Amino acid sequence: MMNVSNVIERLREIMEDETTDQLKEELAGFHSADLADIFQELKPEERLTCFKLLDIEKAAELMEYISPQMQVELLGDIDQEIASKILTRLPHDAAADVLGDMEEDETETYLDKLPHKFSEEVRELLTYNEDTAGGIMNPVVLTVNSDMSVQDVLNYIRIKAERDNLELYYIYVVDKQNHLLGVVSLRKLLTSPVNKKVEDIMISDIVKLHVDDYSDYITDEFMKYQYNALPVVDLYNRLKGMITWDDVHDLFEEETTEEIYQSSGISTEVVDEDEILTGNILNAIRARTPWLFITLLGEFIAVNVAHHFDHTIAALPIVAIFMPLLAGLGGNIGTQSITLMVRGLSTGQVTLSSAFHHILREMLIGLVIGSIFGMLVTMVTWGWQHNIELGIVVGIAMTINMTMATIIGTFTPFALKSINVDPAVASGPVIATTIDVVGLVVYFTLVSVFLLKVL
Amino acid sequence: MMNVSNVIERLREIMEDETTDQLKEELAGFHSADLADIFQELKPEERLTCFKLLDIEKAAELMEYISPQMQVELLGDIDQEIASKILTRLPHDAAADVLGDMEEDETETYLDKLPHKFSEEVRELLTYNEDTAGGIMNPVVLTVNSDMSVQDVLNYIRIKAERDNLELYYIYVVDKQNHLLGVVSLRKLLTSPVNKKVEDIMISDIVKLHVDDYSDYITDEFMKYQYNALPVVDLYNRLKGMITWDDVHDLFEEETTEEIYQSSGISTEVVDEDEILTGNILNAIRARTPWLFITLLGEFIAVNVAHHFDHTIAALPIVAIFMPLLAGLGGNIGTQSITLMVRGLSTGQVTLSSAFHHILREMLIGLVIGSIFGMLVTMVTWGWQHNIELGIVVGIAMTINMTMATIIGTFTPFALKSINVDPAVASGPVIATTIDVVGLVVYFTLVSVFLLKVL
Repeated sequence: MMNVSNVIERLREIMEDETTDQLKEELAGFHSADLADIFQELKPEERLTCFKLLDIEKAAELMEYISPQMQVELLGDIDQEIASKILTRLPHDAAADVLGDMEEDETETYLDKLPHKFSEEVRELLTYNEDTAGGIMNPVVLTVNSDMSVQDVLNYIRIKAERDNLELYYIYVVDKQNHLLGVVSLRKLLTSPVNKKVEDIMISDIVKLHVDDYSDYITDEFMKYQYNALPVVDLYNRLKGMITWDDVHDLFEEETTEEIYQSSGISTEVVDEDEILTGNILNAIRARTPWLFITLLGEFIAVNVAHHFDHTIAALPIVAIFMPLLAGLGGNIGTQSITLMVRGLSTGQVTLSSAFHHILREMLIGLVIGSIFGMLVTMVTWGWQHNIELGIVVGIAMTINMTMATIIGTFTPFALKSINVDPAVASGPVIATTIDVVGLVVYFTLVSVFLLKVL
Repeated sequence: MMNVSNVIERLREIMEDETTDQLKEELAGFHSADLADIFQELKPEERLTCFKLLDIEKAAELMEYISPQMQVELLGDIDQEIASKILTRLPHDAAADVLGDMEEDETETYLDKLPHKFSEEVRELLTYNEDTAGGIMNPVVLTVNSDMSVQDVLNYIRIKAERDNLELYYIYVVDKQNHLLGVVSLRKLLTSPVNKKVEDIMISDIVKLHVDDYSDYITDEFMKYQYNALPVVDLYNRLKGMITWDDVHDLFEEETTEEIYQSSGISTEVVDEDEILTGNILNAIRARTPWLFITLLGEFIAVNVAHHFDHTIAALPIVAIFMPLLAGLGGNIGTQSITLMVRGLSTGQVTLSSAFHHILREMLIGLVIGSIFGMLVTMVTWGWQHNIELGIVVGIAMTINMTMATIIGTFTPFALKSINVDPAVASGPVIATTIDVVGLVVYFTLVSVFLLKVL
């Protein structure tokens, strides 16, 4: 594996010496994926210098590996003629992505400079919502008719795939009006007798996507069927394009990011996930505030609960200092349960029908871990405060608290799922607060009943 | 999309009527991926009934979509002869996975029943660590020599790919000793003149994996270069097999699960990730206890800090009830920062060189959100307790607490990364505890300095 920082150092040395030819040669030697890693680390002006030295082919390849922001940045800073040439070399879906991320008038300027057929097709892609199959698909697909022979198809591929820069995984069979009839894998094509008809070797029972299917449905279908590509049709079953594994790979990474963000209460509903980490700071604040606000409300309930036990704290101030301990551990083990259930529901390892089993299992785990930790806390508190009653109450509160945290943490995702609310969205911060409130009630009740009477 | 529960209901009705032919026909109509979803929901004995009714081809296809546990369960419960036939139909890597999950003597029994060549190859796969390229790869690869013509290769594929059930993405070019020389994509092959030599169209600068590369490296390479398949070589550059996208897809899902587990303090180092959700309860406890234990130590520090301010609490019990509020919100916003940085470092959107920028950015976000929440808390507390001094102190503590939480949450992942510790492993629970401790010090100091003097 290449060491990026070493490479960057060497490139900077060459740039300082202003030996353009050497820099050009050096850059040409990298795989585009490696170049993308290098560009990520360069300063914007260095990046531009290097980008200008790439030939058009390589620049177009690089586009597919870098972030949308960097694509727009680099293309915006070079000569528009060259930028148009680079765009024309991209697959249609990639070109549409770049153009879609530009300012509207800039998009129009570029579209006017592109070859007519290409710009028409890109324009059509831009009309789809970018999160749907229509916005993700590549509209250029190799199609054949069902009465062609295998040899016809092989000859056709030879001309067509080369000229149109086609991605080849499957060959789609359509009728004259472009209705999707079937699919033939390249493997099947290459291993069938050359005089066989396509209709005799095609599969007609096809897994397909619709132009307005959303990205989470698309990733689910790919994950489930594990195909390399799926065809995209419109309402009338006319073939509009195809989506390949590398498109889905990006979607998959985005979805994972959203899942992880949501688990810590970062909302990806109103603000695009890209914006939160690097975009406008106000957008980041908008994405992060909603769940914090709900936590605030929940914690005010906790404060209110504690307030009810004011007299207890006044009578026995020492009990107050154990509040963070109970809240911290209850919150942690509850979060573990939520995480396991939310992830399990998302991968399909956990299903609603197994809810009862999982709640019991987690409760048992909570009880075992809670008992161990309860005993530890009892002993430490006893040794430290020389007050065994206090130790026992804190220990019992800990055991109950941790057990309840696992039950709440397991139950809530199932409850949300069964009323069709995404458990990933609502679980984390809300449950942590619930556990805080319940934990305080348990603890102060125990203290009031046992300690205040004992003393 | 198919509605699984409706399907299950229908199947159960047919099973009750004991009309085997109808059940058989019904089952044959499903795609194997759908069958896998259905099997997931059936009871074990229903599953077995249905499995026995599948023909061998379909049963082998189904194997590739179900979990290892279910594979072993189903194969173990049917006739060994039939089980062997199903195994022989699987790709070598899938067969090795199933056999590797069985008891050792069972594995041997099956290996003895399989065709000699097949069992030899599977035996070799079983010698590799299952988390390395050797354990993941499929050893059956289509290879050609560099002096063959395109037409030769096409003819060769026609015979070879059909017979050996080969996956076709790329064709690997090797010398007589099976050293890897180059790669030709199917697309290139199909679009090149038939009399061209393979060596003239092959790419020699190949991205390849080694048999002992670990799964996280493999997923990184696939993510970076976005190929559909990568060749696997040994120390001497001899081609041993290839890994395809669908293998990596499973690895990728496993890695995501690990990343998500670790973020909530579930350790995947000692216990296999599969075991935590469904396996032995003691393993689940082993995976979950370590970080809880560290939280326990951290929270005892927090308790100790609070203990130092005993006199403050005794003098002014009301201040104690705000502890959960401060800890809860500090913890939440800090967790958001950690999540953003850990995920960003994992996808490459955030790099060490941008650490300073991100720390400043997060600090600013923490300050803005902290100020808003601080003001809210001040006003609510004032209105509720009619004590503006208390409100101001709690509000200021909230602002400082949330700002510090973002700084700690941003700084720690970078610090861990820079000393080559995986930030995902160590961040979550430790930082939550740190924020608790720091938050309490800030709060009680403010209370002691301002409130105890004011009163």
